[in-house]
Amino acid sequence: MWTFDKIPVERIKAATGVTLDPAWLDAAQASAVRLTNGCSAGLVSGQGLAITNSHCVADCAQVLSTQEDEDYARDGFLTDGRDEERKCAGVQAEVLLTIIDVTDQVRAAVVGKSGRDFLRVRDGAMAVAELAACGMDQTLRCQAIGFFRGGQYKVYKYRRYSDVRLVFAPEIAASAFGGDPDNFNFPRYAFDVAFVRLYVDGKPASTRSHLEWRDAPPVEGEPTFVVGSPGSTERQLTVAQLETQRDLVLPVTQLQRAEVRGRLIQFGREGTGEARIAAQALAWVQNSYKLGVGKQAALNDKAFMAAKRADEDALRAKVAADPALAAQTGAAWDEIAQAQHAAAELFVPWRMLESGAGLGSELYYYARLLVRAAVEREKPEAERLPEYVDARLPLIERKLADTPPADPALERIYLEHWLLKTRESLGVDSAPVKALLGRESPEAVAEALAKTDFGDPDMRMALWKGGLAAVQASEDPLIRFILRTDPVAREARAAYESQVSGPTDIAAEKIAKARFAVLGDSVYPDATFSLRLSYGKVAGWEERGRAIAATTTFAGFYDRVTGAEPFAAAPRWLEAKDRLKGDTVFDFTSTNDIIGGNSGSPVLDAKGRLIGVAFDGNLPSLGGAYGYDGATNRTVSLSAPAILQALDKVYERGDLVSELTGR
Amino acid sequence: MWTFDKIPVERIKAATGVTLDPAWLDAAQASAVRLTNGCSAGLVSGQGLAITNSHCVADCAQVLSTQEDEDYARDGFLTDGRDEERKCAGVQAEVLLTIIDVTDQVRAAVVGKSGRDFLRVRDGAMAVAELAACGMDQTLRCQAIGFFRGGQYKVYKYRRYSDVRLVFAPEIAASAFGGDPDNFNFPRYAFDVAFVRLYVDGKPASTRSHLEWRDAPPVEGEPTFVVGSPGSTERQLTVAQLETQRDLVLPVTQLQRAEVRGRLIQFGREGTGEARIAAQALAWVQNSYKLGVGKQAALNDKAFMAAKRADEDALRAKVAADPALAAQTGAAWDEIAQAQHAAAELFVPWRMLESGAGLGSELYYYARLLVRAAVEREKPEAERLPEYVDARLPLIERKLADTPPADPALERIYLEHWLLKTRESLGVDSAPVKALLGRESPEAVAEALAKTDFGDPDMRMALWKGGLAAVQASEDPLIRFILRTDPVAREARAAYESQVSGPTDIAAEKIAKARFAVLGDSVYPDATFSLRLSYGKVAGWEERGRAIAATTTFAGFYDRVTGAEPFAAAPRWLEAKDRLKGDTVFDFTSTNDIIGGNSGSPVLDAKGRLIGVAFDGNLPSLGGAYGYDGATNRTVSLSAPAILQALDKVYERGDLVSELTGR
Repeated sequence: MWTFDKIPVERIKAATGVTLDPAWLDAAQASAVRLTNGCSAGLVSGQGLAITNSHCVADCAQVLSTQEDEDYARDGFLTDGRDEERKCAGVQAEVLLTIIDVTDQVRAAVVGKSGRDFLRVRDGAMAVAELAACGMDQTLRCQAIGFFRGGQYKVYKYRRYSDVRLVFAPEIAASAFGGDPDNFNFPRYAFDVAFVRLYVDGKPASTRSHLEWRDAPPVEGEPTFVVGSPGSTERQLTVAQLETQRDLVLPVTQLQRAEVRGRLIQFGREGTGEARIAAQALAWVQNSYKLGVGKQAALNDKAFMAAKRADEDALRAKVAADPALAAQTGAAWDEIAQAQHAAAELFVPWRMLESGAGLGSELYYYARLLVRAAVEREKPEAERLPEYVDARLPLIERKLADTPPADPALERIYLEHWLLKTRESLGVDSAPVKALLGRESPEAVAEALAKTDFGDPDMRMALWKGGLAAVQASEDPLIRFILRTDPVAREARAAYESQVSGPTDIAAEKIAKARFAVLGDSVYPDATFSLRLSYGKVAGWEERGRAIAATTTFAGFYDRVTGAEPFAAAPRWLEAKDRLKGDTVFDFTSTNDIIGGNSGSPVLDAKGRLIGVAFDGNLPSLGGAYGYDGATNRTVSLSAPAILQALDKVYERGDLVSELTGR
Repeated sequence: MWTFDKIPVERIKAATGVTLDPAWLDAAQASAVRLTNGCSAGLVSGQGLAITNSHCVADCAQVLSTQEDEDYARDGFLTDGRDEERKCAGVQAEVLLTIIDVTDQVRAAVVGKSGRDFLRVRDGAMAVAELAACGMDQTLRCQAIGFFRGGQYKVYKYRRYSDVRLVFAPEIAASAFGGDPDNFNFPRYAFDVAFVRLYVDGKPASTRSHLEWRDAPPVEGEPTFVVGSPGSTERQLTVAQLETQRDLVLPVTQLQRAEVRGRLIQFGREGTGEARIAAQALAWVQNSYKLGVGKQAALNDKAFMAAKRADEDALRAKVAADPALAAQTGAAWDEIAQAQHAAAELFVPWRMLESGAGLGSELYYYARLLVRAAVEREKPEAERLPEYVDARLPLIERKLADTPPADPALERIYLEHWLLKTRESLGVDSAPVKALLGRESPEAVAEALAKTDFGDPDMRMALWKGGLAAVQASEDPLIRFILRTDPVAREARAAYESQVSGPTDIAAEKIAKARFAVLGDSVYPDATFSLRLSYGKVAGWEERGRAIAATTTFAGFYDRVTGAEPFAAAPRWLEAKDRLKGDTVFDFTSTNDIIGGNSGSPVLDAKGRLIGVAFDGNLPSLGGAYGYDGATNRTVSLSAPAILQALDKVYERGDLVSELTGR
């Protein structure tokens, strides 16, 4: 997961035999797209066409299904041509232009700061750096990002596309064939591809830089390069932090996911309408849940933790042996361990009241964003919560204008679940729970909140423009609830920031500096949803003595079809069986190091041509959140030849095939 | 949790100042009732009347609600007199007569046995001992029980009452006031009491031995004695076993509970009928879930585990220092640790396919019992699964005859959940999952199975009498499914028994012997749902520097009422407010060491008089599964005076008051 300002060209050459020259890297960067819904994509034509995954546009497809009998998420969004391309609300596309190092100015700002103050000043300095780089230019997006847990700060400057339209997404029976059971599994037979198009001023964007499509299939052993924006890894956490993840964060989160999963499954049984409403939400929860299972398994693995401990001990020993370094690093590891004791008390209130408040309710999330922005805008910048400084307000306004519609039944489930779990975990008699519920039950409060009009964009924009006065005058139940209960959320946040995340981030910076001093920058930073290059090769792996081949074929897909969900093939695919070549490589695995956020990343060959689109990792790769193991961690991709053939023979989209191949 | 054949009278005198003479102990034993649904009770009149908890008879109350508008579980089972007492299907009552030591004969039988063979022979020898003690006398029940993880074997011989009728149970708003949020909490205001009556030949049983009711309330500091049958503790597990509980058994179980809890909550939202159906099931799952949270918290507590490790190290050091003991104990701890490695692979298949198969489906449980009994009865005794030897068949027949009715909607939820989780945890491509599902989905298989007629007692008894031929000829979908899939369950069991539970039990016996040799029998054995005496005193505790008082009052109850579930008082209680004395002690806590199974246990004073009925533990007591901490673990009981006053003033049951007080 190398950043584009620090590609280890020699190392890659040694490992793969391929020399990535500046032209190769520039072309890859210029074709790489970050979608603001948390996915990656790649430009594949000069008319703004980008390839990504179907699961990355599922929300969009569902939102576009406005007619009673339409279900684009289930049935696919299968346009006949460019006129039918439709805008995905809330999704923006970003292409990286430059990377600006702002480490010195951020570090200078925080000198002598501690606890919450450190976080506020640091985030403020980052916002200032963003504004300096982009100004108020709406065609640009600047994002300041901390790397190496505070070892470096960079501004990533992007070309911003705010009009992203859905071009093509297959039926869920094809894109998610195998469903949750096959998720993170291999052999795999998922056609998880979609196309979107970037528009500027109502016309397809002109994108001269784009990827060339390769006809030949991926071959076992050939070098592969994944270009995309991995979301988040935690490989530089200390052992004390990993233990908190293992014993507290993951268990609490997983239990809540399991319960809401049960609710969504059962809700979906109530009728076909409910099943449709529940489908996307359930897929999301199941995916998160399985990810959590993989992460928990990695941390429960005693050998894995022992290796982490050994790494940490080795670094600490080197630091201790160097008096200057020891003086500068101080008791950083102990400070982090100390913060974990505080986390044992403060994590759950922080999660339930602040960071995870609403537990899935979209409207709660956006309504709080609006209410807080209204409150914070009244204050001088220096006193605001850092995410509401002036430089950040335009993005908040866009978010509110673009808030995707939320289903009231789901909203009620999420809100009720949130309030029940908050009461359960903080206790009936705790002050926050009394503030949230008063003398009401969680069920009654959730029912009342779900009646909010916040789903209405006009209402939101009126409140945004009206500022604090309008917000305070609102009679909307959700707005009133947030106004009334926000103090307890802010209190939980203040406690957590001053005793956990503040001290942790300060100490992590010290450790990052020590690590640089000892190891140099021979390692790449944790993933931060910023553009990265991962090199690897097409390869299977061995699982309990059994060899897993690196590729599957169309023929294998038809063998796996049982007719029962989620192993029922789409009718269109059954009908096309004889027109497809059985030995075509369908999905394949490679040793590239990726993580959630990389979904939709183009997979390139030695010449920079597209050979596939990454859509998943294998089960062992889920522990990759904490550390990459080349022996077993695999990226799962859909091959470019399979896409072309299916577009042609299954979906009869000769127009897209022509656009992609230039033929 | 002392057994009645080993009451440490001197120790109790030293601790409490009370001398428990043989008359006291005999009277307590003769009044103590074990209910076969997993609860305790106490005889409180000469006409077979027994006190227990309302939550212990909730299933019975629900089953008795046959009319559309009846909901005894919600509204209470409030008879007007003895004519209206109604039989609880499937519930039997047992009063302990004698305890017979059979250690030598069981030990002799297993000499030289290992693995599965050890388990089979041991269980067989226990069944033989039962038969020898009770014969086929239907008024007796003999149960062979291993104590100290195999250090001792005893036959508990009970007088058996098969006709247990429900006399009185209050509304759930009273019995479970505070609901899940207040469960395991204190201060507490639950009126969790019920009365049942034992019948013989259609008439109330004559029960000369019964408890005297005390008028005066429990007083802070006074000695308390809880007499009941705690279900199960695991205090003698090795550290390796505790780690398996912490990292594998509890997490897997809790996640499944959380998901099914979500399903039941959502199912209950579909309508009032569904809400009623879901209520008991949900209460059960929530209770188990909260218990699991407490157990997990104990095992995640590093200080707790360090103390366990220190105890184990101390015992191992003493064993190592004694060559004879060392030779006899061998590598027992290492053998158990080795078995844990096997458990890492084998626990989940064993749980999903064998020990927890059906995950809550009553009909699956009973149907498999019947199918297996039919298969096993065809074999010579020595080749059968040990639970199907001749001595055990009458109990199985009674269970099948008395199987409580199951709701088809719940059955479908449980079965679907089970099949989904089995597929998820074992994998789509695993042989057992292929055997369970074939080419069908879990949803379709569950739907088909839920159409079983196994809920019909005539059908069950016809199959029981018809034996294997009838079972094999059955076209019932559940019976056919079990016949078809039982081999994979047996295989998972065989693997688990030969590599995990067999070796573990053999090694545990060695450790038990070593512990006796080093410590004598100065400790009581782990709970085994056998009669125990726990001594303690009325006492509160301190929580994060805050003192929790030992008693609550009626006045406090009315203060806590909010009107919103689960803090809405029953109308009858609101109406009676002025007739109740506000300062009456309602619930109280004491230092007695109890665990699930003790629910419904009489709480006695120094003179052996009834001062309350135990119904819960506090939150810290949940870790009591692994070790009792006298500083914080508390039993929660409902006071005898509160019961009498409410029977009189709230429920107007002067007849019961007279029967209880003899006035």
